[in-house]
Amino acid sequence: MKNKNINHQQILKKRPQGLPDKDTWELIETDLKELSDGEMLIAQEYISLDPAMRGWINQTRSYIPPVEVGDVMRAGSVGKVIKTKGKTVFKVGDYVTGWGGVQTYCVTKGENFYKVDSEKAPLSYYIGVLGMPGMTAYFGILEVGEIKEGDVVLLSGAAGAVGSVVGQIAKIKGCRVIGIAGGKTKCDYITEKLGFDGAIDYKNENLNDAIKKHCPKGIDVYFDNVGGEILDSALIFLRKKARVVICGAISQYNSVSSMKGPTNYLSLLVNRASMRGMVVLDYAPKYSEAMKQMAIWILEGKLFYKEDVYNGIENFRETFLRLFSGDKMGKLILKIKE
Amino acid sequence: MKNKNINHQQILKKRPQGLPDKDTWELIETDLKELSDGEMLIAQEYISLDPAMRGWINQTRSYIPPVEVGDVMRAGSVGKVIKTKGKTVFKVGDYVTGWGGVQTYCVTKGENFYKVDSEKAPLSYYIGVLGMPGMTAYFGILEVGEIKEGDVVLLSGAAGAVGSVVGQIAKIKGCRVIGIAGGKTKCDYITEKLGFDGAIDYKNENLNDAIKKHCPKGIDVYFDNVGGEILDSALIFLRKKARVVICGAISQYNSVSSMKGPTNYLSLLVNRASMRGMVVLDYAPKYSEAMKQMAIWILEGKLFYKEDVYNGIENFRETFLRLFSGDKMGKLILKIKE
Repeated sequence: MKNKNINHQQILKKRPQGLPDKDTWELIETDLKELSDGEMLIAQEYISLDPAMRGWINQTRSYIPPVEVGDVMRAGSVGKVIKTKGKTVFKVGDYVTGWGGVQTYCVTKGENFYKVDSEKAPLSYYIGVLGMPGMTAYFGILEVGEIKEGDVVLLSGAAGAVGSVVGQIAKIKGCRVIGIAGGKTKCDYITEKLGFDGAIDYKNENLNDAIKKHCPKGIDVYFDNVGGEILDSALIFLRKKARVVICGAISQYNSVSSMKGPTNYLSLLVNRASMRGMVVLDYAPKYSEAMKQMAIWILEGKLFYKEDVYNGIENFRETFLRLFSGDKMGKLILKIKE
Repeated sequence: MKNKNINHQQILKKRPQGLPDKDTWELIETDLKELSDGEMLIAQEYISLDPAMRGWINQTRSYIPPVEVGDVMRAGSVGKVIKTKGKTVFKVGDYVTGWGGVQTYCVTKGENFYKVDSEKAPLSYYIGVLGMPGMTAYFGILEVGEIKEGDVVLLSGAAGAVGSVVGQIAKIKGCRVIGIAGGKTKCDYITEKLGFDGAIDYKNENLNDAIKKHCPKGIDVYFDNVGGEILDSALIFLRKKARVVICGAISQYNSVSSMKGPTNYLSLLVNRASMRGMVVLDYAPKYSEAMKQMAIWILEGKLFYKEDVYNGIENFRETFLRLFSGDKMGKLILKIKE
């Protein structure tokens, strides 16, 4: 039993060059202070590990300010309100999700936290298929990708938290879906379990040949989570008026040299195609509508969701690095409930 | 006086690596054959020289098939119908514009030729501001760039046939317009004569510093004719929901190594921006509407148009190369009337 008055926090200690190493974060213990009026104490249960977190610890401002050295590492989380003081937004016993950070307890007045229903879905779903990754997939493929029935959809990171949902939504909408993933296990998973029409193993296949084989008439939508060589190959096969959704570029996040830009970008010109970036936060006003739809699909058995859960805040870095080694299946989660 | 029964033609002889050289085209003389029923003989007056022509002589299919070795070099042109046989689309004396090619005479049944009014505008305008370059500018900035009043518009190739028109249309629509061009003469021209709000001399200024100075709040629309380093710099300064119009990439057309892709393309993600390619041919059904509007702006003195005219079909290659050396001002035209 750990001491209930102690908060365990992963603090950003030093900005990494390349992959985060043992100097990047430091696990510290701090005493929980008395709450002020309006504050709540949240006992965190699960933390979401996402590729975007790598970007937040760079110096440069991205779509949100960087995590400062000395601050608790930013992360999406879900937990339970266990104490309140004065008038608060949530009450003791409520389950909430928000930017709880990589720490076992979180003190907040509730800004950007949302109450969730632990009866309707497993708690961890609220940082996964019903949280940011799920919302990213939903709005990315529907609103940015603008898929319509019969479209050929190619996606990278296809076995991941976002990609697996993107592909399944595209299938629900009547598209032909080809996923790119690393290794036979993941490729079997997306075709056999998720019902994709085809899988490309980028670690063992020639990308151009494989895309040509699976998409002989080209691609209407390419949903990109990885950037680099895979993006470049996909661009070659765009059809007229194709849409490229730029959701992430995991292959480039730890690059210490300059980024690799898409050499074949003039395919956009030749094919009158577009490449559009997205940030899920923009769709916050419509999250609840999307969550409702996703929940229905899950209940109907149309949307399968898989988690890969690891334990212990002390294992944060090692677990986080699985995102970049690819050594995980489905949504990567750290359970930190003490 | 040249022989009226002889056609002078620039034939594609050998596909170039890099810049076209003296082996790329060959000037030949051929006898004009008797017309068949429905055919017209056009005495060509002006030929349009455009960067896109470089792409047409590569082996690879682009948005139109490549010019084949042995064929007359493709080019837009304007000329006069001087002979017809049987029932024809146009009559003797009509002025027409179309894909006449780099030759002094052209025999056609009139497919993809349009009659023009030599009274309403100088003949050469129909391959310039009222032709492809003008249409590219019009639809590119209005329909792809989706400019609105108050937008900050940055454009490259700003003193060129397309860029100069893009910038002026953006000014007419109430945008703040900054042009990028090579050398003081061109920069003075776009600010003093065309009324742009600022000019950046990419040959003598640090691009990032200069864009920052001229567009301290960033860019809403970047209209790209050049690609390469300039595109990369522009991407850094995108504002939220910015639009990048990919019209061309003249810096890359003669590259013998692989293309340089836009290293900073993730700015699209961070800024929820889009990059879209365009091909003017798609807008053909709306050309006449656009031409009417452009003609009005010219008459009202709101749209200034400058031509750089050279003489003689034998000077085709040397003149064409001015597009890539930058040694020209305004729309580059070859006068070939014999």
